[in-house]
Amino acid sequence: MDNKQEVDFSALSCPIPITDYPRVLLAHGGGGKLSQDLIRKMFLPEFSNPLLEPLHDGAVFLVDAGRLAFSTDSYVINPIFFPGGDIGKLAVNGTVNDLAMCGAKPLYLSVGLIIEEGLPMEDLWRVVRSMKEAAKEAGVALVTGDTKVVEKGKGDKIFINTSGVGVVEPDITIGPNRANVGDTIILSGFIAEHGIAIMLVREGLEFESTMESDSAPLNGLVEKMLQASRNIHILRDPTRGGIAGVLNEIAQASNVGITISEDRIPLSEGVRGACEILGLDPLYVANEGKLLAFVPPAEAEAVLQAMRFHPYGRDAVIVGEVVANHPGTVVMKSTIGGSRVVDMLSGEQLPRIC
Amino acid sequence: MDNKQEVDFSALSCPIPITDYPRVLLAHGGGGKLSQDLIRKMFLPEFSNPLLEPLHDGAVFLVDAGRLAFSTDSYVINPIFFPGGDIGKLAVNGTVNDLAMCGAKPLYLSVGLIIEEGLPMEDLWRVVRSMKEAAKEAGVALVTGDTKVVEKGKGDKIFINTSGVGVVEPDITIGPNRANVGDTIILSGFIAEHGIAIMLVREGLEFESTMESDSAPLNGLVEKMLQASRNIHILRDPTRGGIAGVLNEIAQASNVGITISEDRIPLSEGVRGACEILGLDPLYVANEGKLLAFVPPAEAEAVLQAMRFHPYGRDAVIVGEVVANHPGTVVMKSTIGGSRVVDMLSGEQLPRIC
Repeated sequence: MDNKQEVDFSALSCPIPITDYPRVLLAHGGGGKLSQDLIRKMFLPEFSNPLLEPLHDGAVFLVDAGRLAFSTDSYVINPIFFPGGDIGKLAVNGTVNDLAMCGAKPLYLSVGLIIEEGLPMEDLWRVVRSMKEAAKEAGVALVTGDTKVVEKGKGDKIFINTSGVGVVEPDITIGPNRANVGDTIILSGFIAEHGIAIMLVREGLEFESTMESDSAPLNGLVEKMLQASRNIHILRDPTRGGIAGVLNEIAQASNVGITISEDRIPLSEGVRGACEILGLDPLYVANEGKLLAFVPPAEAEAVLQAMRFHPYGRDAVIVGEVVANHPGTVVMKSTIGGSRVVDMLSGEQLPRIC
Repeated sequence: MDNKQEVDFSALSCPIPITDYPRVLLAHGGGGKLSQDLIRKMFLPEFSNPLLEPLHDGAVFLVDAGRLAFSTDSYVINPIFFPGGDIGKLAVNGTVNDLAMCGAKPLYLSVGLIIEEGLPMEDLWRVVRSMKEAAKEAGVALVTGDTKVVEKGKGDKIFINTSGVGVVEPDITIGPNRANVGDTIILSGFIAEHGIAIMLVREGLEFESTMESDSAPLNGLVEKMLQASRNIHILRDPTRGGIAGVLNEIAQASNVGITISEDRIPLSEGVRGACEILGLDPLYVANEGKLLAFVPPAEAEAVLQAMRFHPYGRDAVIVGEVVANHPGTVVMKSTIGGSRVVDMLSGEQLPRIC
């Protein structure tokens, strides 16, 4: 599924000789010579930046007075390689997006790897290369890290934690409890692509066209949106739990009602078909490159236009609004005119989707 | 081994009813209602602070202009409960210490949990309570977090990533490449206690007295040391790889020679005996509440005295010095007058010690 990348990430380019170390050993996480090798030969040259190079217990950098955002996420997705990305790209973009959803400009990321003994060294190399590329696109630096290796059967290939810090400009106040009655709700594009891409790989299903994860860094899009309006109330990326989960969280946190219109939600034919076959409701399926914005109605059009000029927002649409009725509840007007409550899922729809 | 705690951390006090949810389910990490329950009933009340409460994608806080330190570590220790602590205490203290070793005052920590499906809910509760206590002692706030649950057999009870942010005062410059010839090397206390405590539990060995992990937050000690001297060159906590590993890293990073005296290194009789039985060299065994400081000789006595007045530095001693000879190499003068090179381990002495 990923032939172009196979060439780039070939064993030939791996800085740890695959013939000597075809797989990651426990000692690669033990703090001794093999750990040092991994850090000095693989991580340091790829993630190269002045803050990382001292290899201190942490990175030290200058900041201006003001507000910082700080976020963390662990990635345990299965499989670790999938159409449109891999766990490394996801880990960088995911934390970049968490920071962007605070209205922050992401600056620095940390990387904590938990590797299962026996992971092919080439797979680690692919993930590391992918993290480098993702960091480059997002404009962030990977400045500090940690590697642990657990015995075979005590992990699952690789888990990645990324934490990040970013700066929030003084006049930005974004938070999940800031939805106001009347706010316009904008969705940045087609939903459910990440979750469906993963499920199709897991189920071994093939479609006419490959479904790809939408994993993408949204900080550039957010920057454009904040240039259009300093009064955006809420930004959220609908990952686990999908747009239904996020809208419910916001309705509860802000104690407001939310209505959305089914026929406005961008859904590709491919994803719609795959959801039917898999028995999934796309509203609950994870996205990794989309956002929801709650904006005062007078500024919604300006924000929408700014989004449409950005590659990750070109399909942005208004999908609903905040209402005084049914506080704490999300209601969807269906295509045929009825309406239904869109509840939060109680259980686990798609385990290990991110 | 831990009866006092068993009472405190009893199932009765667990905010998730043990009768309903005796074990962690996949759905507790799925982003739906059970995830929300875990966050709102267990994590939020325990870690309660104004930055965490908005439950945003990240925490936002004010900083003054200056230097920040940023660090990350994942904890995969086995077993998760051990004499002197547990994985939660270790995860908080470990990242607090990484920040302190940058000369920073630790402020905020993130917590990323990767839980194996089936973990007893009571064990999660004990770990959470323990993190709260450790954060309180260290004076840091747990401000943002993430929880993932992986299928049974795809993890090992619980892995914890903590990342942290702290402030570095303007006149402090500490780094692993700052060792100068002539620097005095101070060790804060008895070595190898953490590693030996873990190994004894794993091997099922009992000694006359229980060996306890030395897990402790060192930021208070570092604060006192920096009050005594602004010219400390290096601070490092000798965790994985022990004092031998850390001294070798410093010798290489600073391109200097290091000599230490065997008879000055604080080693308890119990640890010495356990090392003999287990066939371990205490120089390579992990510590979780000790530090090594490289200090200009003229200020060494002041730093040493400041350390001895602090509970975590009362056994501090001068163990060696930085020399111009044998750059990149650590040499130990033995008790009987000879000397030997103390190399870095190539392999893995003690897997999953932190």
